Amino acid sequence: MTPDLVRPIALTMGEPGGVGPELTLKAWINRRGNGRPFVFVGCAALLREASARFGLDIPVQTVETSVEASTLFSRALPVLDMPLALDALPGLALPEHAAAVIACIERAVALARTGAAAAVVTNPIHKNAMHQAGFAYPGHTEFLEALAGPPHRAIMMLAGAGLRVVPVTIHQSLRSAVNDLTSEMIVETAIGAAVALHGDFGIERPRLAIAGLNPHAGENGDMGDEEIAIIRPAVDQLRSRGLDVEGPLSPDTMFTARARARYDAAICMYHDQALIPLKTLDMDGGVNTTLGLPFVRTSPDHGTALDIAGSGIADPGSLIAALDMAGQIAAHRGRSA
Amino acid sequence: MTPDLVRPIALTMGEPGGVGPELTLKAWINRRGNGRPFVFVGCAALLREASARFGLDIPVQTVETSVEASTLFSRALPVLDMPLALDALPGLALPEHAAAVIACIERAVALARTGAAAAVVTNPIHKNAMHQAGFAYPGHTEFLEALAGPPHRAIMMLAGAGLRVVPVTIHQSLRSAVNDLTSEMIVETAIGAAVALHGDFGIERPRLAIAGLNPHAGENGDMGDEEIAIIRPAVDQLRSRGLDVEGPLSPDTMFTARARARYDAAICMYHDQALIPLKTLDMDGGVNTTLGLPFVRTSPDHGTALDIAGSGIADPGSLIAALDMAGQIAAHRGRSA
Repeated sequence: MTPDLVRPIALTMGEPGGVGPELTLKAWINRRGNGRPFVFVGCAALLREASARFGLDIPVQTVETSVEASTLFSRALPVLDMPLALDALPGLALPEHAAAVIACIERAVALARTGAAAAVVTNPIHKNAMHQAGFAYPGHTEFLEALAGPPHRAIMMLAGAGLRVVPVTIHQSLRSAVNDLTSEMIVETAIGAAVALHGDFGIERPRLAIAGLNPHAGENGDMGDEEIAIIRPAVDQLRSRGLDVEGPLSPDTMFTARARARYDAAICMYHDQALIPLKTLDMDGGVNTTLGLPFVRTSPDHGTALDIAGSGIADPGSLIAALDMAGQIAAHRGRSA
Repeated sequence: MTPDLVRPIALTMGEPGGVGPELTLKAWINRRGNGRPFVFVGCAALLREASARFGLDIPVQTVETSVEASTLFSRALPVLDMPLALDALPGLALPEHAAAVIACIERAVALARTGAAAAVVTNPIHKNAMHQAGFAYPGHTEFLEALAGPPHRAIMMLAGAGLRVVPVTIHQSLRSAVNDLTSEMIVETAIGAAVALHGDFGIERPRLAIAGLNPHAGENGDMGDEEIAIIRPAVDQLRSRGLDVEGPLSPDTMFTARARARYDAAICMYHDQALIPLKTLDMDGGVNTTLGLPFVRTSPDHGTALDIAGSGIADPGSLIAALDMAGQIAAHRGRSA
């Protein structure tokens, strides 16, 4: 395992006007003495400026290689420098920065795919500013899937507070999520989640809870027929393939502490069915993981928080949890590889 | 206030084969020394049998009037007897009991409407068994609205763990909820909730949080247009009438502890948007309240729990909380009347 431990995590810059720079500095303070090192893939001047603004006096040092970054990590925050042409202003997300934000993600992914980095952790990006600049993806997950290329299919898993959730449909209207849902999507997502829980999280025989779509899971068709027509057939298919699944479960009672203890991940039918229980339980420590890619990727479970950027009050809990989880997944993959 | 304190709460029998009898006995043990008395409107033999089964040795005594019930309450569990023609079996919900279950609800409502009882608290009914027997309502709430008659419109509010939620659409498929949602429904529900929070809960100027329907509240129309077409106009109307409302809020972040502190009730667009956060936070202490009726009504926030009926392990927390809340609302109404 020793050789792997020197591979750092590649941490992307994210939106320069958001809380990313502040969180990165705070995460380095938290981790410099222990844990897997990371290397910031972004603008070194941006971090130096933030360090001065918050009076943190953190040594920010540019490096050329990831090995150099790991060696340095206990003494300074290592940066693979991607200088910004235009200065950033805390609280302001500029479309002019989008190209640099994208380039940082691409470089971090390249590092992870070549094995120079153990994993990619992404700081939050500002989707609106990115879309204004022509970024064609709903978010990181879809962009990373495109970078990975076929046949890889990205699966979004959010974890925190003893709960893992995997939405089958994600960034689309509730109406279209209901219309688009198929047994095949549920089966694919559940299998992808089970494979990742085994390979990435070391769970011997993952237990999956499949949510219903309707109130009380439809009450035998009284309140919607998707459980009968779509979800139950998917559950049957998954069972016939030998997976440990239960469902469709009543969505409102499947996230209580008692219910959560019975499964390793909940397969959810739409975005908020997954995100409401997770964020209600644990706003600050949630981690977003992308399963199914040929590299490890996690991120904090929050946005750019422009409203508090520059104030110094941003909580690095979720980023630190994301770095921890990325390191753990990388270690699991290393073991099974 | 003294005369009001002798008026007991009318507690209905609910499903005889469910956990209702056990919860009723446990609630009496909890309340006999303090709190507003209640009178069980149901089968006395059913309670005696349950008392014997659980070895509780509780004195169950039939009474003729609610005043008699209050006087007796510290010494015995008072019952306005509605004998069952057919014995009940714990764990079995029989359509043959539906008529008696309904008669108990009707009698409790009559007691509350004539002022003989301070409030109605309902034990859980088994909807499936009721529907098999021809009961035409989706649940208690709709039946009570029918008993109240026009122009009363029942509004369902669930409360627990520092969170109150009010679903605008309730017992219908998710697809039909999305299709049926109108600005008018949101406005009506929010106004009803605000009026009740003021009159029933003594909140001077209720603060309402209006949920979005889509992920991230639609992100300015990128993921669904219901926020723009339906919810925002409703929020504007509510504001123009002087109500303290915010929204449409992103559904996944509006139930965190920090967010919950900013409002008195969340107006939710569909059943699970309201019920998931509530039950995830507080499975055992939740209370269901029906607002907008000419009598006070609360109930525990769980079902008949046939799977554990007769085992003695049912948790009376939610029923006790429902009795407490009914007493508090009755006191508020008494004060403002």
